[in-house]
Amino acid sequence: MNETSNIRKPSVGIIGASGYTGSELVRILSHHPGISLEAITSESHAGKKISDVHPYLLDVCDRTLIPSKVVEDMDFDLVFLALPHGVSMKFVKEHRDRDFRIVDLSGDFRLSSGAVYKEWYQIEHECPRLLGDAVFGLPELFRKDIISASLVANPGCYPTSAILPLAPLLAEGLISPEDIIIDSKSGVSGAGAKAKPVTHFPSVNEDFRAYGIACHRHTPEIEEALSRIGRGSIKVNFTPHLTPLNRGILTTIYCKPVEAVKMEDLDSVCARLYSTEPFIRIRDTPPSVQAVRGSNFCDIHMQLDPRTDRIIVTSVIDNLVKGAAGQAVQNMNIMLGFREEVGLESPPLAP
Amino acid sequence: MNETSNIRKPSVGIIGASGYTGSELVRILSHHPGISLEAITSESHAGKKISDVHPYLLDVCDRTLIPSKVVEDMDFDLVFLALPHGVSMKFVKEHRDRDFRIVDLSGDFRLSSGAVYKEWYQIEHECPRLLGDAVFGLPELFRKDIISASLVANPGCYPTSAILPLAPLLAEGLISPEDIIIDSKSGVSGAGAKAKPVTHFPSVNEDFRAYGIACHRHTPEIEEALSRIGRGSIKVNFTPHLTPLNRGILTTIYCKPVEAVKMEDLDSVCARLYSTEPFIRIRDTPPSVQAVRGSNFCDIHMQLDPRTDRIIVTSVIDNLVKGAAGQAVQNMNIMLGFREEVGLESPPLAP
Amino acid sequence: MNETSNIRKPSVGIIGASGYTGSELVRILSHHPGISLEAITSESHAGKKISDVHPYLLDVCDRTLIPSKVVEDMDFDLVFLALPHGVSMKFVKEHRDRDFRIVDLSGDFRLSSGAVYKEWYQIEHECPRLLGDAVFGLPELFRKDIISASLVANPGCYPTSAILPLAPLLAEGLISPEDIIIDSKSGVSGAGAKAKPVTHFPSVNEDFRAYGIACHRHTPEIEEALSRIGRGSIKVNFTPHLTPLNRGILTTIYCKPVEAVKMEDLDSVCARLYSTEPFIRIRDTPPSVQAVRGSNFCDIHMQLDPRTDRIIVTSVIDNLVKGAAGQAVQNMNIMLGFREEVGLESPPLAP
Amino acid sequence: MNETSNIRKPSVGIIGASGYTGSELVRILSHHPGISLEAITSESHAGKKISDVHPYLLDVCDRTLIPSKVVEDMDFDLVFLALPHGVSMKFVKEHRDRDFRIVDLSGDFRLSSGAVYKEWYQIEHECPRLLGDAVFGLPELFRKDIISASLVANPGCYPTSAILPLAPLLAEGLISPEDIIIDSKSGVSGAGAKAKPVTHFPSVNEDFRAYGIACHRHTPEIEEALSRIGRGSIKVNFTPHLTPLNRGILTTIYCKPVEAVKMEDLDSVCARLYSTEPFIRIRDTPPSVQAVRGSNFCDIHMQLDPRTDRIIVTSVIDNLVKGAAGQAVQNMNIMLGFREEVGLESPPLAP
Repeated sequence: MNETSNIRKPSVGIIGASGYTGSELVRILSHHPGISLEAITSESHAGKKISDVHPYLLDVCDRTLIPSKVVEDMDFDLVFLALPHGVSMKFVKEHRDRDFRIVDLSGDFRLSSGAVYKEWYQIEHECPRLLGDAVFGLPELFRKDIISASLVANPGCYPTSAILPLAPLLAEGLISPEDIIIDSKSGVSGAGAKAKPVTHFPSVNEDFRAYGIACHRHTPEIEEALSRIGRGSIKVNFTPHLTPLNRGILTTIYCKPVEAVKMEDLDSVCARLYSTEPFIRIRDTPPSVQAVRGSNFCDIHMQLDPRTDRIIVTSVIDNLVKGAAGQAVQNMNIMLGFREEVGLESPPLAP
Repeated sequence: MNETSNIRKPSVGIIGASGYTGSELVRILSHHPGISLEAITSESHAGKKISDVHPYLLDVCDRTLIPSKVVEDMDFDLVFLALPHGVSMKFVKEHRDRDFRIVDLSGDFRLSSGAVYKEWYQIEHECPRLLGDAVFGLPELFRKDIISASLVANPGCYPTSAILPLAPLLAEGLISPEDIIIDSKSGVSGAGAKAKPVTHFPSVNEDFRAYGIACHRHTPEIEEALSRIGRGSIKVNFTPHLTPLNRGILTTIYCKPVEAVKMEDLDSVCARLYSTEPFIRIRDTPPSVQAVRGSNFCDIHMQLDPRTDRIIVTSVIDNLVKGAAGQAVQNMNIMLGFREEVGLESPPLAP
Repeated sequence: MNETSNIRKPSVGIIGASGYTGSELVRILSHHPGISLEAITSESHAGKKISDVHPYLLDVCDRTLIPSKVVEDMDFDLVFLALPHGVSMKFVKEHRDRDFRIVDLSGDFRLSSGAVYKEWYQIEHECPRLLGDAVFGLPELFRKDIISASLVANPGCYPTSAILPLAPLLAEGLISPEDIIIDSKSGVSGAGAKAKPVTHFPSVNEDFRAYGIACHRHTPEIEEALSRIGRGSIKVNFTPHLTPLNRGILTTIYCKPVEAVKMEDLDSVCARLYSTEPFIRIRDTPPSVQAVRGSNFCDIHMQLDPRTDRIIVTSVIDNLVKGAAGQAVQNMNIMLGFREEVGLESPPLAP
Repeated sequence: MNETSNIRKPSVGIIGASGYTGSELVRILSHHPGISLEAITSESHAGKKISDVHPYLLDVCDRTLIPSKVVEDMDFDLVFLALPHGVSMKFVKEHRDRDFRIVDLSGDFRLSSGAVYKEWYQIEHECPRLLGDAVFGLPELFRKDIISASLVANPGCYPTSAILPLAPLLAEGLISPEDIIIDSKSGVSGAGAKAKPVTHFPSVNEDFRAYGIACHRHTPEIEEALSRIGRGSIKVNFTPHLTPLNRGILTTIYCKPVEAVKMEDLDSVCARLYSTEPFIRIRDTPPSVQAVRGSNFCDIHMQLDPRTDRIIVTSVIDNLVKGAAGQAVQNMNIMLGFREEVGLESPPLAP
């Protein structure tokens, strides 16, 4: 499909556009040449312009937010759900007979079963049968399934940063599946646009802390994806930390090589899996979150510690782009037949 | 009075100890050798330890917060009110017959009349007659009145940073009272401990903005104090800005010399007024907020621009110390007969 | 000229590409469809790829930096100079007979005479006669002169933030030229890419300070531009401050209305001058630097304080974009016949 | 010894007072009632006042910095060395016959042998025989040896944050010595007071990165201390990260229980080792660096993940206090017979 042709462009809606991932979708789609953004919704800000809620969007997108029930009378080719978990599955359930395809950015359709969902999210899943239809939208690993999917579960930010660098090692059996430790550090935009005590500026600035130790919801999402890649049941330790910066996740991973592994082996498995990927950059020094800010890149570095016989992997993403809205647009591009980079070509913004 | 003697120490209470100024009072008073902290109150956190609300205080002060009505059965020599404006005046009104003296950190008793109060605070003052009894608690300028005051109105953070550097210039008639511009920049702790959209970390970090242009409540407080010092009615332009740091106010002031003024004149008026003050440091380069963090210092710098015939004054304070709790303790020290530095001797903490 | 046509694209070079303004030019030009970037130079990093110096540019621009003398054998349509002041004028002097047009991002050609230059920069100008040929490249005000200029002096970051909001007021004679106070706050990238004691992280973070009081080099640049617009000699007070954030300038301006001015007058002069400008956004609340980050926007807000009879103007820009590289590309677009927005269409990046 | 008696106070010197650890020693000792600070030295700033180099110390300590060779004619009871590694051992070697005792804050005397030193520091040790005399100055674990030591090697910041929380687990044999992963995050003051490209504000702010993977010099220091406590040879994975804040280290540790361990076991081993320690606070939620800022506290939290059978330990310190100058003063207090808390009683400063 020609990106700039004059034939009817696919129509797209964003359900829940007033949060950070929703407005980031608006930002990215505002200069996507191939689609037509037909509706953006918000319950709490309905009637306002998106640029009143997010002033940086003035003159970029001044469209008015509408309540989500209005979309029931509209036709779309594809709809993004940037809703809280629990709310998203209600929307999917209610609209499961509609024609449009869905990219859901919540956690509602990322897990394999209602039971696992309930264990980690502490609520009952409302449409567990649809879990089997949902495709886990990590393009670099599951691209073929995404092409024709009707429901794509866009991965979480932490899982994206953990699964992408582990995939080459697990796919080729270089590391033990038993001993994987994932220590992640996230900027504060990952906590959402709503003010909370934990995101109060003086409480975060000049501070640093771990949270959700041994109980964060992204744990089973990471484990299920790694288990598929590694062909076996994988459990991991995952610890997230809150970092005093706006955007970015750095994930440090510790794993055990199964046998004698050399630095060159690490390089070659990365190259085999990722050398043609437009959004993966293999680094020869530890990456920094600033180098990916505002972009859809995932930068990866691997290092062998022969002294302790361990592999230390570091990866960085922008949690709102490759960790959310950018990856969602990458999924849309795959689903609608665009080149994957369309709309995602702005370089990172540093410093 | 001997600071460490074994005779009965004055008993002190903090009404509203769970906010930033209240907990800062706890921090400072926890190592004040001369007083006995008898009660700390909070309505919203009553029953919890202060160190559960502010974990940094663990093992420093683990006293339990009590509801403020409990203090009605207690005796105090002095009570600090770290309450929101509007609430403070209710407490003062209800307890006006009690024996204890009061240092009020709210804005309720800083202005000269109920009419001015209503104009800027948009609520009716509940005990306007008490305004005349209240002493404006800026020790460097009004020390004599504080000694015997029963009600001290502790100055606002911005006013402290603006009045102290302007006082020597106005007191000796060096500047025109007509043309004073006060451009202030404050850290975010000045907005209080409660999470609000405007203090959400990603909204403040990597941001900077003015607010309250031409309508901030500290304006009349600055004007009334300057008018007393300058012996005439003074109006000022005052613009506050929100700065992405936790503690500190920098105020930049522009004023007009009345006639030929030399740099030496600026130095000598500062020296005459402040050379023996323990908490004023005159700087020969522009001061930085980091140099006063955690301390009760106010650093001041004056510069003459002969090209434009204007004086540019810069000052810095820690908004929670000299701008709130530290100055309140300084006032208490004066009222109870301690040396002014007692409890306020910790050096600044930098970087 | 068609932006994406296959006819030969104008060839462009960047002299001094390793600093912040140089790499920002690379970032912007990397997705400019109308030009061909032929050379990027650096003396200190010659031989390295630009993406080795600025890792965020990996896969965006991996061109090798060459020494600037290599460009002597190359043909260009236009060359950007992102060199320090003093170095820039040497380049211009040596290449004044070459065919290429120049956009100089240094301060070397912004002032009207060698004498003024020497007074503020403390060095002798090496080609003062060329000062008369240089056009001050503020497109919104001097667009006509830029079209055919051979040498454009790209404005400084602070001057851009001060001149744009003052222009409508001065052009229509609404304010007194005698009483203009400009209080500016800049992020740290304005101090350049080179590590200095004053930009050491712990010295800037959690700090805030004024610098260059009454002696900053941008003062005469502001005064000369305002004098042209206001048709008379204008002197200003200008005070810059160093703010703990990466990108962004907020400028707060205080000025006196010449006679009875109403809020509507302020709105209408802004509208008359700027309503069709693609990069000026008039705000009805005080703007924030985050809202323009990464973009070429200048956001402006005006407020009348009837109580003190003063106008308070606030403006924000990204110092590296509208304050440097973005404006330089805007100038290039004008000089080469492109639409002004080409290459500058990425929305701001917030939070 | 009475802390405030009038008998001759022990005389103390600080060799290398102009860096962050040196000036932090000045800050702490300026209000230590029991010692007399007789000399502070600096080669690069000799002749200046310490308060000219660190303006926050104005009126706190205005002593003049002298060259270190001047101390050869002075008598001291104890000398702190706040010198770079490599320089410190030269001082110790040259002054090994002097009467004063030494607390060395560099890494020069922390390791057991010249060979290990050379392997990790890449330089030859100049007085390897003295390594056997040096006592590793972690009071909570090696207090008895410190009392009479003539040379105390003050621990590194990262090692302090890692060894203290691991000690109770290793001492009682609760964890496997084979599988310890230490993921540390430090504020930027840990990189020293000297401006470097890696500490340039825009390069650190809004960034986050790992460094020194598998090769950081604190690794053998951690391993040697843990091996002593665990009575066996212990190797660890240690990865430091640079965090955009001034002060504070958070260390996240992953280790394997040797057999069935319960949460209560973790609590009780902590209590047994640390319940009477004045500077250790056991937390029941993950600690935050803000809660210890400016203080000598080390806060520790332990959590069992029964799902993966792993213990996750988090600890925080202020890298300049418990990680450097505060611990050095704690060591001095032990050596000179003071209570350990003297001079270290200021509460943390938050927010």
